[in-house]
Amino acid sequence: MSKGRVCLAYSGGLDTSTILKWLINEGYTVVCFLANVGQEEDWSTVEKKAKQLGAEKMVILDLQREFVEEICFTAIQCNAIYEDRYLLGTSLARPIIARAQVRVAEENNCEFLSHGCTGKGNDQVRFELAFLACNPSLKIIAPWRLPEFIEKFQGRQDLLKYASENNIPVSSTPKTPWSMDDNLVHCSYEAGILEDPNTTPPKELWTRTVDPLDAPDKPTEFTVHFEKGIPTKVVVAGKETTGSVELFKLLNKIGHDNGVGRIDIVENRFIGLKSRGCYDTPGLTIARLAHLDLEGLVMDSRVRELRDQFATLSWSRQLYNGMYFSPEREFIENSIKFSQENVTGEVRLMAYKGNTYVLGRKSDASNLYSEEDASMDSLEGFSPMDTTGFIQINAIRLKKYGLQKIKDGQPLSKS
Amino acid sequence: MSKGRVCLAYSGGLDTSTILKWLINEGYTVVCFLANVGQEEDWSTVEKKAKQLGAEKMVILDLQREFVEEICFTAIQCNAIYEDRYLLGTSLARPIIARAQVRVAEENNCEFLSHGCTGKGNDQVRFELAFLACNPSLKIIAPWRLPEFIEKFQGRQDLLKYASENNIPVSSTPKTPWSMDDNLVHCSYEAGILEDPNTTPPKELWTRTVDPLDAPDKPTEFTVHFEKGIPTKVVVAGKETTGSVELFKLLNKIGHDNGVGRIDIVENRFIGLKSRGCYDTPGLTIARLAHLDLEGLVMDSRVRELRDQFATLSWSRQLYNGMYFSPEREFIENSIKFSQENVTGEVRLMAYKGNTYVLGRKSDASNLYSEEDASMDSLEGFSPMDTTGFIQINAIRLKKYGLQKIKDGQPLSKS
Amino acid sequence: MSKGRVCLAYSGGLDTSTILKWLINEGYTVVCFLANVGQEEDWSTVEKKAKQLGAEKMVILDLQREFVEEICFTAIQCNAIYEDRYLLGTSLARPIIARAQVRVAEENNCEFLSHGCTGKGNDQVRFELAFLACNPSLKIIAPWRLPEFIEKFQGRQDLLKYASENNIPVSSTPKTPWSMDDNLVHCSYEAGILEDPNTTPPKELWTRTVDPLDAPDKPTEFTVHFEKGIPTKVVVAGKETTGSVELFKLLNKIGHDNGVGRIDIVENRFIGLKSRGCYDTPGLTIARLAHLDLEGLVMDSRVRELRDQFATLSWSRQLYNGMYFSPEREFIENSIKFSQENVTGEVRLMAYKGNTYVLGRKSDASNLYSEEDASMDSLEGFSPMDTTGFIQINAIRLKKYGLQKIKDGQPLSKS
Amino acid sequence: MSKGRVCLAYSGGLDTSTILKWLINEGYTVVCFLANVGQEEDWSTVEKKAKQLGAEKMVILDLQREFVEEICFTAIQCNAIYEDRYLLGTSLARPIIARAQVRVAEENNCEFLSHGCTGKGNDQVRFELAFLACNPSLKIIAPWRLPEFIEKFQGRQDLLKYASENNIPVSSTPKTPWSMDDNLVHCSYEAGILEDPNTTPPKELWTRTVDPLDAPDKPTEFTVHFEKGIPTKVVVAGKETTGSVELFKLLNKIGHDNGVGRIDIVENRFIGLKSRGCYDTPGLTIARLAHLDLEGLVMDSRVRELRDQFATLSWSRQLYNGMYFSPEREFIENSIKFSQENVTGEVRLMAYKGNTYVLGRKSDASNLYSEEDASMDSLEGFSPMDTTGFIQINAIRLKKYGLQKIKDGQPLSKS
Repeated sequence: MSKGRVCLAYSGGLDTSTILKWLINEGYTVVCFLANVGQEEDWSTVEKKAKQLGAEKMVILDLQREFVEEICFTAIQCNAIYEDRYLLGTSLARPIIARAQVRVAEENNCEFLSHGCTGKGNDQVRFELAFLACNPSLKIIAPWRLPEFIEKFQGRQDLLKYASENNIPVSSTPKTPWSMDDNLVHCSYEAGILEDPNTTPPKELWTRTVDPLDAPDKPTEFTVHFEKGIPTKVVVAGKETTGSVELFKLLNKIGHDNGVGRIDIVENRFIGLKSRGCYDTPGLTIARLAHLDLEGLVMDSRVRELRDQFATLSWSRQLYNGMYFSPEREFIENSIKFSQENVTGEVRLMAYKGNTYVLGRKSDASNLYSEEDASMDSLEGFSPMDTTGFIQINAIRLKKYGLQKIKDGQPLSKS
Repeated sequence: MSKGRVCLAYSGGLDTSTILKWLINEGYTVVCFLANVGQEEDWSTVEKKAKQLGAEKMVILDLQREFVEEICFTAIQCNAIYEDRYLLGTSLARPIIARAQVRVAEENNCEFLSHGCTGKGNDQVRFELAFLACNPSLKIIAPWRLPEFIEKFQGRQDLLKYASENNIPVSSTPKTPWSMDDNLVHCSYEAGILEDPNTTPPKELWTRTVDPLDAPDKPTEFTVHFEKGIPTKVVVAGKETTGSVELFKLLNKIGHDNGVGRIDIVENRFIGLKSRGCYDTPGLTIARLAHLDLEGLVMDSRVRELRDQFATLSWSRQLYNGMYFSPEREFIENSIKFSQENVTGEVRLMAYKGNTYVLGRKSDASNLYSEEDASMDSLEGFSPMDTTGFIQINAIRLKKYGLQKIKDGQPLSKS
Repeated sequence: MSKGRVCLAYSGGLDTSTILKWLINEGYTVVCFLANVGQEEDWSTVEKKAKQLGAEKMVILDLQREFVEEICFTAIQCNAIYEDRYLLGTSLARPIIARAQVRVAEENNCEFLSHGCTGKGNDQVRFELAFLACNPSLKIIAPWRLPEFIEKFQGRQDLLKYASENNIPVSSTPKTPWSMDDNLVHCSYEAGILEDPNTTPPKELWTRTVDPLDAPDKPTEFTVHFEKGIPTKVVVAGKETTGSVELFKLLNKIGHDNGVGRIDIVENRFIGLKSRGCYDTPGLTIARLAHLDLEGLVMDSRVRELRDQFATLSWSRQLYNGMYFSPEREFIENSIKFSQENVTGEVRLMAYKGNTYVLGRKSDASNLYSEEDASMDSLEGFSPMDTTGFIQINAIRLKKYGLQKIKDGQPLSKS
Repeated sequence: MSKGRVCLAYSGGLDTSTILKWLINEGYTVVCFLANVGQEEDWSTVEKKAKQLGAEKMVILDLQREFVEEICFTAIQCNAIYEDRYLLGTSLARPIIARAQVRVAEENNCEFLSHGCTGKGNDQVRFELAFLACNPSLKIIAPWRLPEFIEKFQGRQDLLKYASENNIPVSSTPKTPWSMDDNLVHCSYEAGILEDPNTTPPKELWTRTVDPLDAPDKPTEFTVHFEKGIPTKVVVAGKETTGSVELFKLLNKIGHDNGVGRIDIVENRFIGLKSRGCYDTPGLTIARLAHLDLEGLVMDSRVRELRDQFATLSWSRQLYNGMYFSPEREFIENSIKFSQENVTGEVRLMAYKGNTYVLGRKSDASNLYSEEDASMDSLEGFSPMDTTGFIQINAIRLKKYGLQKIKDGQPLSKS
């Protein structure tokens, strides 16, 4: 009799194939699940392999649209960034995948959810927090945290041995000396030779961007249109592209071809460790820059200040830490949406050999920028003389500060 | 009899030459002051011109070292940035210049300080708040906010007419159709044709960086060394450069040659207006990136989170708004310094056609990054099983959230 | 011919009567406006006096309901407080009054707005920022900042002299040696003898609360019901009161009778000065406590943390600084409303001799508090063993911190 | 042979006596430790009991002075408060106790630390995070999270049975139907009948404060003196008390006698649960109020704003969550200390029937408050006319906002 029904996140690789077989050998019935969030994948091969290894069923879902529209566009709206550098590519996909896996488990009467994440990383946390929020009644099997599993599979050799004993096909492509995670937003590269933070990633590591040194000598010029902070149209050489996924893929292509969006960082994982990661994130890097630029033109300064300090940092951290399905993410996202009311307009850009440049921007949605105001010509209700009073009032505290320093023998006028 | 002694910030240009002459014609005695904060200038010509126009004295002070060590290095230590884009070049120099001008005024028994800033900009605020903090007893003459002055000089033609009537030499170089401000950190370009935010700056605008399209095909590799967050050494092709100003200039040269550090933004001025600015900031762009990267390796994650949200945003805004000589800047700077205790190490970088890339980094100052920890091998006192408890405890709130949603008929497992 | 039509905020006191007469003498036509925001006032006497002094019209509007529902209830929802102490009573009323005055000006074809606020206080800023936001085309006459007015009226004697010359009736009640501002929320006491911050306010100063030493020996018990953070019912001794204004007045009465809500502080004005203020705020003090308490029961901890740090502090400061009609207030208020979705329930309280005590609370709106969870009995999906992992993972950073200290010769285990 | 040496936090109660005996029965050698942090205790009885049950040694340390000076005074300096209500009494003592326990373990060659905290509370986290930071090499035995221990002791009856079988003396005093934790700062009351948040705590629950209804009819007036934010002297009826612990105890007595400092709240535990707690915190409630008041007089407004938003909230949360021995607490505490430079002066207060009132304050340490400035008389360098410019400049954004609303058909002048 089956120990129960498990919905396993299955990628077709050695790790999850081993887990699939091990679960079956342990007496579980397994429904495999694979989300299409835009990664490179040979979908039918994965399906065939799952079936061959004994999965009752293999469910593959195309989640690209919900991924882009629900998460990536919100990331753009709040200029999401983690620790000033990382655009959160992996973190963005996790909630979408986890939610779909819960749906698949529910539809297939599974009591268990399983995944192949390692025990020191962020992804286990992201998946499981999402699982537990989306359906607290489902139980989780995390083999890489089960003592019996860890003991059995202490290294790659044990996996290969088990594969050979259990007729698990092993790819003939040699494994890269780092691990990768790929989706519509980016590809990440971690572990292996990258664990020495002073090792420069080899040229062949990057999969989503051309090496800037090999990028074309001619820049690509294009325009991104936004409505309420969401990209709605990209125009390249007179050709318009709309449609969320299509447009996002076009930005990826522009970024790819021009080598835009590579970073190499040491970051702080949720679970208290530092780790080194390399990421290439072509389209989102461009979209974020364009959005930031448009906000400069149309967003009120104080709203922006509050949004930057509060919504951007919070949302980014929530996603990084796997707290997407949380009351605090809803709370912050409500603010983000509200802030985007006037973020409508277009930004002209140029991508060239690893970088993107803003060439200009315009918007009819806001009266905040005014050439007349900004210039020295007279402003309705503004007189330069007013500034004198503004400065004097702002100086009240500062003059007291300076006088106190003089009294204390530390005049500010000395360097 | 003199109406009083004025210390005037004098640049030798048409505006401040007019102000100098006008002050003299109004009956003041004028001591001119010019700060060397690294800008391009023909110092002796300026001095000669001031004297010729009737200044009692022309004081030129080299403030480069205090500018770099006191302000620029602090900006690097806190990764200062305004509205996600602007590295604050102009704002950084203002306190140093203003403080020196107060000293010059004090030493020359002046009762008045004067400057040529316009009445709608940030700089008048920055200068005058600094003046009022450094010596509240000095009075300020801001001609561009005096009704009688504004009325007399309503446009460039009036200035030229006055110049011709008063024997003020006018440069034969045609004026650029934008205004510029230059210092060791950057050059800014504003106003004129740039007031249309959709006008792309012409190629010849940029003075501090080569056009990325014209930059060398061969990248420049180099290493920046930090001690407590301060750059102490730059190594290029085996050649070491130390010394604060020397090293900063070398970073400027690397950035210049490779076209690094150009931005074009619409920003929010302190006085409630938006304005468009273009900036090229070669060395500081590089130094900031290198510093950020090193912090990834050595800074505690929670300290970083607090520092990012609190110190970086506050210090940047304080500088932008001219609040350098203020108790709140002292308060924040105390935190910044404290946070840099372990930010010691080196970062390898590459500059290439408009961008800078981190190639690797190392540090002996911190135990926070550990290859052993980051990898899957066992960590002293860490067991993957612990993560299960960590996730479960973190999920307590989230499970309640999910259950509430189910109860409310809005299950999270539906997209 | 009239210089124009002015809508003057007129209270009937010596100051605004003088301004009314002065405006008329200067050649303006004046429409007087008085808002009923719950203060003590002899409305018909004020009206008669305005007419008698030459006002074209006297408009008195009862704004109590919009004041309570639009502003006071939002203040309760976000636990508004300024500098940890001040419940913002005066600041809360200003936007409501200013907006109504603009409406009256518009309806009566006035081109000018005028008020009697002094030139160093917060209220001038609050009124005028609201005026300028609500109708930027209206011009402002602030007599206490007009050089000719200030020169004419240098002290109370000048006002009395002018009153006598212009047949302005002067109240026979001797003026208190401090100034007061009264509305439904509180009464404020400032200036005069209170300017010495070490002078204890005399017993007779307080108008809205009984002296705690004179309050009844028997406490008043009552219950406040909330829906989405808004008080909807108050029950005292079995008697239910609903209706926003009625309920607010009942809380005021409970607070008044029991001496609840007095504070005496030195605060920081928007315009860079410190000032000493005494405030008695009976009902809002109670409502805020009750609301805070209910949030403890029903609000998610992380939402609360974010709300406390951003929304509460921001909204309070915005109101204090007169920034009610601003995009940033709208932005923050949107968050506040969102956070109150589940703040439904009731709180039992007791008022007694200057203080209010929570006696208990309950709510059906949230599943966050659970007696079962909070107690040591087993929790669905929670095992005490999980805490071990939670602690170990949280300790990863801290152990490194401790080890670094040991290495640095500063072990944490020494005090 | 011993399984090892354990340093056990031993209180003499039934729980820790059971743990002591159980550890011995399991084969450990046990050194007992009890910290004197100001709680009521019969020290010699505890010691005798420990020895009698088989402890190798009983170490009792008086930590009151370091508790007050290192932690409580910092709490006062930053006005520490958790979730707007809780003064953190228990959290404040934990780091001091835990650090001393590590010292005792080190001095007695123990490899293990043990405590009797339950598995759902905050205290286990606080103790163990402190243990792991102070000496990561020590191992922790938390019996209430050990499956074998929990299974054996499922309720109080099991404890009593074990006591009877193992000759553990049981107090004849009947147990209160709630649990308590007592130290110099407060007594906490939780669990048992208090788990229903709508149950009003019985009159006899409170141990550290007189019932306000029973407090004297005559108020107690007194003065608290501060130096750099630290209370240095308390004067009652002309009698001066200095000395950190003595002074703190005097404030406790004043608070006790007048019924000051009771709260009853539902709070958010670190581990995702809500719990209900009652606390009486007499002296710290008074000291916090006095300190807050003095800061109003002497602290710069912007420093205060930053300190409130970051330092106060962060330090309070860090302490609550057991993160005292952490880099982030050091980082924040550095800011707190810096902010207190001028917080020197004295505050006059009155305690009366459950409340404390400020009667006045003075300071020579700061020039920020000035009677002259605050009053309407002329201020050096300040002219009321300046405020006009200040308002106009601040209104630039707001006027645009109002105009946009008019354009959008939503004029702000309509309510």
